[in-house]
Amino acid sequence: MLLERMESGGLAHYSYMVGSGTEAVVVDPRRDCEEYLSLARKRGVRITAVLETHRNEDYVIGSRELSARAGCPIWHADRQLDYGYGEPAEDGQSWKTGPLRIEAMLTPGHTPGSMSYLLYDPQSNPWICFTGDALFAGDVGRTDLLGMNRAREMAGMLYDSIYGKILSLGDGVILCPAHGSGSVCGSEISQRLWTTVGLERKHNPKLRHEDREAFVEDVAVELERPPYFTLMEKLNSQGPPVLGAPPEPVAMSASDFKEIAERATVLDTRTELAFSSAHLPGAQFIQTERVPAFAGWFVPHDRPIVLVTDDDPAEVVRLLFRMGYDDIPGFLAGGMLSWHTSGQDSASIPTMTVQDLCGRLDAGEELLILDVRSGAELEATGRIPGSQHVHLTTLPRRLDEIPRDSSLVIFCGSGLRSMIAASYLAGNGYHDIHVVLGGLSGWSSISCPLSNG
Amino acid sequence: MLLERMESGGLAHYSYMVGSGTEAVVVDPRRDCEEYLSLARKRGVRITAVLETHRNEDYVIGSRELSARAGCPIWHADRQLDYGYGEPAEDGQSWKTGPLRIEAMLTPGHTPGSMSYLLYDPQSNPWICFTGDALFAGDVGRTDLLGMNRAREMAGMLYDSIYGKILSLGDGVILCPAHGSGSVCGSEISQRLWTTVGLERKHNPKLRHEDREAFVEDVAVELERPPYFTLMEKLNSQGPPVLGAPPEPVAMSASDFKEIAERATVLDTRTELAFSSAHLPGAQFIQTERVPAFAGWFVPHDRPIVLVTDDDPAEVVRLLFRMGYDDIPGFLAGGMLSWHTSGQDSASIPTMTVQDLCGRLDAGEELLILDVRSGAELEATGRIPGSQHVHLTTLPRRLDEIPRDSSLVIFCGSGLRSMIAASYLAGNGYHDIHVVLGGLSGWSSISCPLSNG
Amino acid sequence: MLLERMESGGLAHYSYMVGSGTEAVVVDPRRDCEEYLSLARKRGVRITAVLETHRNEDYVIGSRELSARAGCPIWHADRQLDYGYGEPAEDGQSWKTGPLRIEAMLTPGHTPGSMSYLLYDPQSNPWICFTGDALFAGDVGRTDLLGMNRAREMAGMLYDSIYGKILSLGDGVILCPAHGSGSVCGSEISQRLWTTVGLERKHNPKLRHEDREAFVEDVAVELERPPYFTLMEKLNSQGPPVLGAPPEPVAMSASDFKEIAERATVLDTRTELAFSSAHLPGAQFIQTERVPAFAGWFVPHDRPIVLVTDDDPAEVVRLLFRMGYDDIPGFLAGGMLSWHTSGQDSASIPTMTVQDLCGRLDAGEELLILDVRSGAELEATGRIPGSQHVHLTTLPRRLDEIPRDSSLVIFCGSGLRSMIAASYLAGNGYHDIHVVLGGLSGWSSISCPLSNG
Amino acid sequence: MLLERMESGGLAHYSYMVGSGTEAVVVDPRRDCEEYLSLARKRGVRITAVLETHRNEDYVIGSRELSARAGCPIWHADRQLDYGYGEPAEDGQSWKTGPLRIEAMLTPGHTPGSMSYLLYDPQSNPWICFTGDALFAGDVGRTDLLGMNRAREMAGMLYDSIYGKILSLGDGVILCPAHGSGSVCGSEISQRLWTTVGLERKHNPKLRHEDREAFVEDVAVELERPPYFTLMEKLNSQGPPVLGAPPEPVAMSASDFKEIAERATVLDTRTELAFSSAHLPGAQFIQTERVPAFAGWFVPHDRPIVLVTDDDPAEVVRLLFRMGYDDIPGFLAGGMLSWHTSGQDSASIPTMTVQDLCGRLDAGEELLILDVRSGAELEATGRIPGSQHVHLTTLPRRLDEIPRDSSLVIFCGSGLRSMIAASYLAGNGYHDIHVVLGGLSGWSSISCPLSNG
Repeated sequence: MLLERMESGGLAHYSYMVGSGTEAVVVDPRRDCEEYLSLARKRGVRITAVLETHRNEDYVIGSRELSARAGCPIWHADRQLDYGYGEPAEDGQSWKTGPLRIEAMLTPGHTPGSMSYLLYDPQSNPWICFTGDALFAGDVGRTDLLGMNRAREMAGMLYDSIYGKILSLGDGVILCPAHGSGSVCGSEISQRLWTTVGLERKHNPKLRHEDREAFVEDVAVELERPPYFTLMEKLNSQGPPVLGAPPEPVAMSASDFKEIAERATVLDTRTELAFSSAHLPGAQFIQTERVPAFAGWFVPHDRPIVLVTDDDPAEVVRLLFRMGYDDIPGFLAGGMLSWHTSGQDSASIPTMTVQDLCGRLDAGEELLILDVRSGAELEATGRIPGSQHVHLTTLPRRLDEIPRDSSLVIFCGSGLRSMIAASYLAGNGYHDIHVVLGGLSGWSSISCPLSNG
Repeated sequence: MLLERMESGGLAHYSYMVGSGTEAVVVDPRRDCEEYLSLARKRGVRITAVLETHRNEDYVIGSRELSARAGCPIWHADRQLDYGYGEPAEDGQSWKTGPLRIEAMLTPGHTPGSMSYLLYDPQSNPWICFTGDALFAGDVGRTDLLGMNRAREMAGMLYDSIYGKILSLGDGVILCPAHGSGSVCGSEISQRLWTTVGLERKHNPKLRHEDREAFVEDVAVELERPPYFTLMEKLNSQGPPVLGAPPEPVAMSASDFKEIAERATVLDTRTELAFSSAHLPGAQFIQTERVPAFAGWFVPHDRPIVLVTDDDPAEVVRLLFRMGYDDIPGFLAGGMLSWHTSGQDSASIPTMTVQDLCGRLDAGEELLILDVRSGAELEATGRIPGSQHVHLTTLPRRLDEIPRDSSLVIFCGSGLRSMIAASYLAGNGYHDIHVVLGGLSGWSSISCPLSNG
Repeated sequence: MLLERMESGGLAHYSYMVGSGTEAVVVDPRRDCEEYLSLARKRGVRITAVLETHRNEDYVIGSRELSARAGCPIWHADRQLDYGYGEPAEDGQSWKTGPLRIEAMLTPGHTPGSMSYLLYDPQSNPWICFTGDALFAGDVGRTDLLGMNRAREMAGMLYDSIYGKILSLGDGVILCPAHGSGSVCGSEISQRLWTTVGLERKHNPKLRHEDREAFVEDVAVELERPPYFTLMEKLNSQGPPVLGAPPEPVAMSASDFKEIAERATVLDTRTELAFSSAHLPGAQFIQTERVPAFAGWFVPHDRPIVLVTDDDPAEVVRLLFRMGYDDIPGFLAGGMLSWHTSGQDSASIPTMTVQDLCGRLDAGEELLILDVRSGAELEATGRIPGSQHVHLTTLPRRLDEIPRDSSLVIFCGSGLRSMIAASYLAGNGYHDIHVVLGGLSGWSSISCPLSNG
Repeated sequence: MLLERMESGGLAHYSYMVGSGTEAVVVDPRRDCEEYLSLARKRGVRITAVLETHRNEDYVIGSRELSARAGCPIWHADRQLDYGYGEPAEDGQSWKTGPLRIEAMLTPGHTPGSMSYLLYDPQSNPWICFTGDALFAGDVGRTDLLGMNRAREMAGMLYDSIYGKILSLGDGVILCPAHGSGSVCGSEISQRLWTTVGLERKHNPKLRHEDREAFVEDVAVELERPPYFTLMEKLNSQGPPVLGAPPEPVAMSASDFKEIAERATVLDTRTELAFSSAHLPGAQFIQTERVPAFAGWFVPHDRPIVLVTDDDPAEVVRLLFRMGYDDIPGFLAGGMLSWHTSGQDSASIPTMTVQDLCGRLDAGEELLILDVRSGAELEATGRIPGSQHVHLTTLPRRLDEIPRDSSLVIFCGSGLRSMIAASYLAGNGYHDIHVVLGGLSGWSSISCPLSNG
């Protein structure tokens, strides 16, 4: 028996490989699909089908890559949307994977044709339900992706799918959703790594409502929508290009890198501290593990990307490839050390500790604190009195609210998002930017003052 | 959040590592504990405690090895038994592992003081129950280990533990037992890799009974008890020796190997086909992945073991080390090829396909077919008319039932256990032994005759 | 500084990656080129050129695969031959790889335009010479590949290349040839893993001659020429197809495998003992590590290949891919065990030990011993009196010399080549075949009689 | 045939494993000896002996660890010194490793009893000479370790060893010394990764002398002697403690780490840029790959070490273990991010680019530039006018030369050593320290002024 969850970090995306005997299926594969093929080889199974739960919007689905390499069909959901590949799965359709049965169960709401897939155990009892973006641990799928004018309609469908179908599978059935905590596809997904119908029925705050109307009211809300969603939706409908493997960036000397950097996005994925100390002027900072979560907001899809990284460049490339970035010609060989030893100039963004900040405020210093956390975070924890709030993801369209002649002190939960914001601002001509290390977590630990969010 | 199940193949033993923040605990570790330490390092957690669910009998517990290397305390269960290390866990005692809470819950029945451990989720709801050998997927723990005279008493305690405590956690709670399908600790464990209270309540055949009495009747039965259990129980009570790492066998030339083989058990872990063709006279065959399941029956603990293997000898050694075999001085360098090129003599055990066997029986040939499957298997599938039944694990004590002057044809489910039996018989002076490749599975596929089991 | 030798086992082929600073070149890459790319990434170098020493005949050169993935030019040698890709290297042409210089040095003889490449050390002294197939440790390149009518001409050119150019580099210069011991490109290559001009000048038996004429006489001889050389030469001249990655065989159930086996070559790469005991009727045996050495003789290029293996199928595929086998649709999932448990029939080839054989000969039994070693081996060691000699590689064209109605006993150096021969014979309708385990090595160890070769 | 060079990075130490058939020996093993054992297992060889070329002074020899795990004898050299383990090797003594012969050859000079080991090839010709610290690529062993009063005597012995013995092996013989470029055991070792007698005879600057006297004059000089040499020599004479494995540091929360940091050395092995931006007050910076080269100068052996690192802590521990640091209780879990989010305070050391520095000097700013490169580097490249020179390794004993009230600008070759110096100064109470990124390499690239060294 084979049941593996593969997590795509940063996106908090889960794909699953399920098999028995000599056969297996993959649910919602990612685009760099070597891992599925290698596990299949090791376990002696043939991948007989790719199953999609829905047309995804937060990453490029790997169905076509995997189909091409494994020689298997794709069963997509969402026949209402305009798919360019594979066959639509039907409600009730079932597949055998070795001796096990897996059955499609229409659970619309997140998208009009979202499918869940129910896996029966070796004794043919309902066992595991792959719920896609219909039901998560502690949250439900968002309903605003077709536009807010259809959100209540979609939320109603989602109510019917969850209450009418998923919950009725029985409390003991295990749930395997497409996302875990940290995904943009559900803002409040819990950290429960494994969950069940029973746990969600009792503890999921979105399922506390007594009737459909209350559920719709709670759920039909507008959430953040990263600008790259539109491209992902288009690629996932038409079928993304099949490359066979992620791009292969080459090592570049400092002088070659400097030249290409002029017409490319320089993405710097080192730690926030290393970036702070020295980086290429204009570089966008996103630490490697945050690339899947933030590249879509700050890195355009229509320019080449070149990398400054202390990690394996191939790992960063895999993360970008999952998000549809296919043009990544190179990385800086030898990292910033080689940049400096070849006499290139660099920029820095100074940091301050929470103690520094607290001391300066106590001393009555005038500082423009820019808090880039989300509204929900501010509500939950309060804010530093006098700070200005611009959520990180809204920064690109709210630049004009941020004064260019002040000394800016960027603040977030830990310092990581602050550095993303700071690098974006620096790339847009801002000067005199500081980043607070430790952010709200650090601030709270030393009992400095907070006002209500 | 860290929640990992580590499976010890062959034993179908599961240990678990659970953590959050910078801390983690390990439940029922195995003796080669590098994997826990390496995961701890990678995830930046400190192992703060080892928790034992009960005094194990089928392998050597790794608590003391891990405690020594991680510098953490051991909490064992079963204060009634005479433990030589660690502190007994108390019913209701709880630990924090980072922000998560884990709580001991007394669930006797398999042993007098078996503990389960209940893990609460990040919202402090009951989430996962580590049930040890109390409740498995599709089975319950055996109750005969203290002797059949106490089995009904133990079965009653187990009823109370399961019905009174575990089932009352609610259907949605996930169960993480100490064993999966294939363990000697429960003969009918299901292949459901993950399960829940609800799935067991509905589908576990041992939980179908209406009252305590019927449960006791069903469960208080005597199961197989490998001879090495006694040693494991003693080691696990006293605390096994701490070696720091598995033994390091050295590569031996054919002539050195020949010499040491005279005073050691030669364990041959190649495929059944390779063994069939040529092996050291007297060698005991058990293919690598079956070593944990069968070594305890056929390999004595009081002699050195030397290996003939096509796998990494270190892997075989790890498996043996888990079972308390600590004296493994060497392996045959270059394998059987070097044995033969140095002019050593070898033995073989001929095989036949199911077609061969069927043809010979059709032709009226007189063959003594020795079926080494379990009684339950025979009942379920029937048997070849005229065959003699001696379950593999009873072979050592029933040798006198097997005639020494007949041509023996050994039969099992697939051919693997037959070869274990054949090598044991050959080592005990039997000649003219044949093994049927494919066994019952093959036999059934070609519609040859079976009589009722 | 980067200087790595990558050995392609079985072919005893060496490729080299040499670099400094942020640049590197690869000499004679193999076709599965992930290893070069991955090392380049790890060391932060860009592959700036592929250098070929000559048009190879024993494997498919990886120049085009690597060029496509690394985006670098190819410099081939042998402009006299009809190349379909890259640019011809010129005698004296030089490249910088970082601060190091590498220089082409025309050394014809093995092929008309063979190039050696001389690498200068960081102090600009001649340091390492990549000699391709011109000069090996203990041997020189063969001169018969353009036909025996040109062999003396080529041998003369080779004399001039070695004595006039390579030896004059000075005794201290290190030699890095394209092959090591075991290659078909030089029958007597020594096991010296690293060598120098001085060691070859003193100890290479081919360089003991006093004049050009004696050298030509010694060297202009016809050697074995596997049938697949012709295809390799064609592919390496035209430029082999660029696939991006080795083929991906899928796991096949026994019944699917049986079906495809009818129109494919079944290649069985398990141990000779496992094969002996049971295999698919008609399967060709070549153990994994011998695949590069023997597939070219026994596996046709114009049929699909399906695999029976106990190793990672991807590893076997890589070996075949290096030899130009691109159509490898699948492997038997679960190996022979699943073959037998699904009720399929199998064949076997009995073995005997050298003791058995010696005993039977002593007893005056009439046996047709077929010795498949090379003529050189027979000369060196003698032969079993009365045995028939047919070298393994000549078997396909000398089948009519081998009687079909005798009991055949196949004999070689160790038993491995005997099993290759036996499987070939069995596939061609021979019955009653036996293989001697241990071969000549074993035979010599037990002092059984040998007559002069 | 097995011939592997294992490099211990940072120390530029080479150990070698040589074998054939089923046996191998290891020359000068390092203390974390898993790699030898694992290769032995993989290649099917038994380690039959450890050979030491001399009593080492720059790292802890792994002979006793390896001997304990492999069960093999140790043959040390230098019977004149007071060894506490193993047997002294004799000049002319020889060992078989499989069919190959290896022979001890007394080559004193670096130490009184230094042995080289000559390996014969499969045809019994002198092939490879393991020269220990007698002869390197481009340099010879230092002769000052017994004190300068014996240096000329030792240099004379070294002359006799090299000219009388090693060079007379013939130009073609390959040399395998115990160190490569970057070692403290020879200041001018070349980057030639492989070398020969001939290459050294022609190109080694120390071998250009016409007579013994000139050689002695050149070679009998005093070199740097890190303070930890004394301890290494003592441990390597007596036999270092056998631990079985490197220490296992545990992950520590920020608060636990803060507590232990008060009585331990905090070693920070991140990049110089990350350290610059924020680090624990008082932490000693040495980037991971530089730990072997610089820990001996700046990290005392008599205090516990705790780690701040972005690399695998186990890797850093291995490097420290090789240098005799055995007390490494923990590392900061979650790195500096967790430090800051738990509200701890940190320090920083500002950097400047070479452009900044050049601009400031041009503007006539008064800066105290502290150049920490070696005297030889200054001579070779010149220095910034007005800079003060204190070689990094002399910093601890020359602190009183460095003014405490000036603004210090630390300068080296690239910025790495400057940051080591800066962290040491900060740990000793200095303030207002700046580090120049790019160092001399960067400075030279932008044509800023240099005066003669």
